[in-house]
Amino acid sequence: MDLSTARKQLMELQDKMSAYGHAMALLSYDGETTAPRGTAANRAHAMGIFSEIMYTLSTGKETVELLEFLDANKEALTQKEQRMVYLLLKDIRFMQKIPMDEYVAYEKLVVESQDAWFAAKNNSDFASFEPYLEKMFENRIRFARYAAPEMDPYDYWLNEYEPGISRATCDAFFGQLKERLVPLIHACAQRPQVSDACIKGDFPEDKQEELALWLMPVLGLDTDHVGLSTTEHPFTTSLGSHLDERITTHYYREDVSYSMFSVIHEGGHALYDTGSDEDLAYTVLDGGTSMGIHESQSRFCENILGRSKAFCRFVFPKIRELFPQQMKGYTWEDFYKAVNRVQPSLIRTEADEVTYSLHVMIRYELEKQVMSGQLKVHDLPAAWNKMYKDTLDIDVPDDKHGVLQDSHWSFGAIGYFPSYALGSAYGAQFLARMKETVDIDAALEKGDFGPMNAWNREHIWRFGSLLTPAQVLENAMGAPFDPGYYLDYLEEKCRDLYGI
Amino acid sequence: MDLSTARKQLMELQDKMSAYGHAMALLSYDGETTAPRGTAANRAHAMGIFSEIMYTLSTGKETVELLEFLDANKEALTQKEQRMVYLLLKDIRFMQKIPMDEYVAYEKLVVESQDAWFAAKNNSDFASFEPYLEKMFENRIRFARYAAPEMDPYDYWLNEYEPGISRATCDAFFGQLKERLVPLIHACAQRPQVSDACIKGDFPEDKQEELALWLMPVLGLDTDHVGLSTTEHPFTTSLGSHLDERITTHYYREDVSYSMFSVIHEGGHALYDTGSDEDLAYTVLDGGTSMGIHESQSRFCENILGRSKAFCRFVFPKIRELFPQQMKGYTWEDFYKAVNRVQPSLIRTEADEVTYSLHVMIRYELEKQVMSGQLKVHDLPAAWNKMYKDTLDIDVPDDKHGVLQDSHWSFGAIGYFPSYALGSAYGAQFLARMKETVDIDAALEKGDFGPMNAWNREHIWRFGSLLTPAQVLENAMGAPFDPGYYLDYLEEKCRDLYGI
Repeated sequence: MDLSTARKQLMELQDKMSAYGHAMALLSYDGETTAPRGTAANRAHAMGIFSEIMYTLSTGKETVELLEFLDANKEALTQKEQRMVYLLLKDIRFMQKIPMDEYVAYEKLVVESQDAWFAAKNNSDFASFEPYLEKMFENRIRFARYAAPEMDPYDYWLNEYEPGISRATCDAFFGQLKERLVPLIHACAQRPQVSDACIKGDFPEDKQEELALWLMPVLGLDTDHVGLSTTEHPFTTSLGSHLDERITTHYYREDVSYSMFSVIHEGGHALYDTGSDEDLAYTVLDGGTSMGIHESQSRFCENILGRSKAFCRFVFPKIRELFPQQMKGYTWEDFYKAVNRVQPSLIRTEADEVTYSLHVMIRYELEKQVMSGQLKVHDLPAAWNKMYKDTLDIDVPDDKHGVLQDSHWSFGAIGYFPSYALGSAYGAQFLARMKETVDIDAALEKGDFGPMNAWNREHIWRFGSLLTPAQVLENAMGAPFDPGYYLDYLEEKCRDLYGI
Repeated sequence: MDLSTARKQLMELQDKMSAYGHAMALLSYDGETTAPRGTAANRAHAMGIFSEIMYTLSTGKETVELLEFLDANKEALTQKEQRMVYLLLKDIRFMQKIPMDEYVAYEKLVVESQDAWFAAKNNSDFASFEPYLEKMFENRIRFARYAAPEMDPYDYWLNEYEPGISRATCDAFFGQLKERLVPLIHACAQRPQVSDACIKGDFPEDKQEELALWLMPVLGLDTDHVGLSTTEHPFTTSLGSHLDERITTHYYREDVSYSMFSVIHEGGHALYDTGSDEDLAYTVLDGGTSMGIHESQSRFCENILGRSKAFCRFVFPKIRELFPQQMKGYTWEDFYKAVNRVQPSLIRTEADEVTYSLHVMIRYELEKQVMSGQLKVHDLPAAWNKMYKDTLDIDVPDDKHGVLQDSHWSFGAIGYFPSYALGSAYGAQFLARMKETVDIDAALEKGDFGPMNAWNREHIWRFGSLLTPAQVLENAMGAPFDPGYYLDYLEEKCRDLYGI
């Protein structure tokens, strides 16, 4: 094999993989957005065949020899090519350890399990989802054992979603958060309460959609390449490359803020993905480098920018224009307070910034227990409810508002949740650095995301997956990660809102 | 190779092809329904790779040897397997004659051309679409010459969409239609006119959507497996198998009948596809056998059933319930007359049954001229407008309402249009036979499509592509095709409506 042919083949391989990735992401997106309810088995048929093809393509002699040849000659490769080879080989080494039939069966399970979760959530019927969830946890343990027999299975998955983390680092991180957040929540509860009346009421879905579509370009999204759909649970997905990005939301008539902030959150993911350098398209370097960094961008947009005083001041006139009756008598300050009200609640995605990480911590603790065998899937609902009572003093009325609320476990994302809290904490540290050169409030008051987007593009987005998460953090923080920034940020917000 | 292995491989090959077909149909469907406007190039990237893979899979030594082996042993195969081998080899023989790079380039052209058409139609800007359309006609001529150098290229494509037809049969068929339809249209014009006031006005889209969703189960569609979306131009597509079917419509606020009858039309296509026997799923026998038979089912639903007196009587109370203000003072008979008003018009898909086939004939004549080199693509708009004036005495105000109105040419469907008129004529002959055993009016008055669907399933749907179009026609007509049935049917309708 000669090097220049091999380099060409490296690009062709990724071209092909991106097409399969496009098809599989689109099958899944279609299943969540548009597909008739009875078509999951039909989608699973195609998904099974594609995952078999992907498995064979990845682990086939030709691919392995190509990548091993390139790896052996890496000093002759560009930085980008080196990273491509590294990431491709990493995936292949994983696949090689999984028997093909189990690999394919898992991909089909994902389709069917998501479908079962959707119905179970709507009927608040955990029992109908339980067999899928059992298979899912069982699978994650089995696959982790295949991939890294020397590692604890949960540590394996934590490290897959956010390289470098483990139960030990998460225990320390959540311990540090809990220590300052629990007293902070209590302190807020002692103070005169803030009202969220202005965001509750009756907000027709078509007007909420108008708001969402108005927000997208405000955030700096290029709507020629980023689409909006509705789903049970909001998410973001790239189809084939960062040139076609889709975000989703869910409109609740009774609360104007849910969809609005989910659009800003998913918009943050989409900004990160679509911010990849153009020449990364159709390669494994396209899009974000880890889920923690991804969530740092979405949570930064949603909370640090989206729930700021300056942005609330900018956005309120538009909301009043769309909902003149509902907003009668309210000011932008009422809106600011409403969307920042600190109040333990049932639903993670609707939680305020201060209680949010405790929702994440509960999921982390439960995953940890099920993965270690301490807790049975069957007992998850009761354990969930008990933890919400103990941690947030919240009574969970039913599983729809409890253990069934998130879609993640249904598609196998076990070990993902900590990324949300880590990402939030990363974002607060980025903020401190960004403030040194960017007048954020001045920009937000004009509804101009440009300067912040430019900073994020420069330090984070453009690299796609070329840099490791650790390199991105170093790039953007210029110092070691310190959750203290996040806790300081939250305390300062509470001081302002509750006069603590 | 032993026979039982080969038979197993035949099914595996089709499984794989159905997955690729699923992905490519979904890419195209997504492009038409949901995708952001700037993403065509990204879709074309995946489409190009998949068509290259499909080409290689189909024309590869392994596949060709397998099918030739099975073909050589066909007496040992079931009727289904024989037909599978025949259809697969037919496609492969075609592909083998097309150079792979041209095959792949064509698939990409389709994506980009559809995108260009969409923008061109909206801006009524033929010039921006012209280069794509030129390439498209040029391609259809070139590919036909590769495939069948001995045939006229237009005859080749006519025969692809409806096996057995040619310019000679179409000339005779349209001649026969024109001879009786032109005087019929003139006769209607001489009589007191019918008003369509009740279907014109302001009909909010959400209410029209409600009507569409109500109609789908009425037609007998299983909405667990048939979805509805909106597109610029209505169509029907199968994703992977008949177990996931999508129909689309377009809501025009000013006319309640457009979307309603497009849903019934596309619903007819979907009934045919989803009516395939279960065990045809994921094989080349799944879904309809030709475009002519397909259009017979859609046009039968839309017109013969959908615009019948009995069905209008059944459906009118629902329309009045959804649009009480707009329908005030009107009766079901007004509605029946409005949706059957004979009136030369601009848009094919909005045309009444009597003028409809003349719209089709115009497209046929123009395609024939461009394919033979008599007419340049550049001169299509002028030729279109002249033919509308000569045939229907209609002045075309702009290309949006003229040559750009249909999407078909943009995706290469040149030679498709005659299927619409042929299908309409087939349907009238089916009707005559169906009436011998089914009390259609009695069923329609109750909104019950069951007996007619059962007849169509028994004679047409269940076979998928197992039977040839000629066999299906024989099955359903029990006699040679005779366009006289269609003309008799139209004349009888005009007698009733215009007292001719």
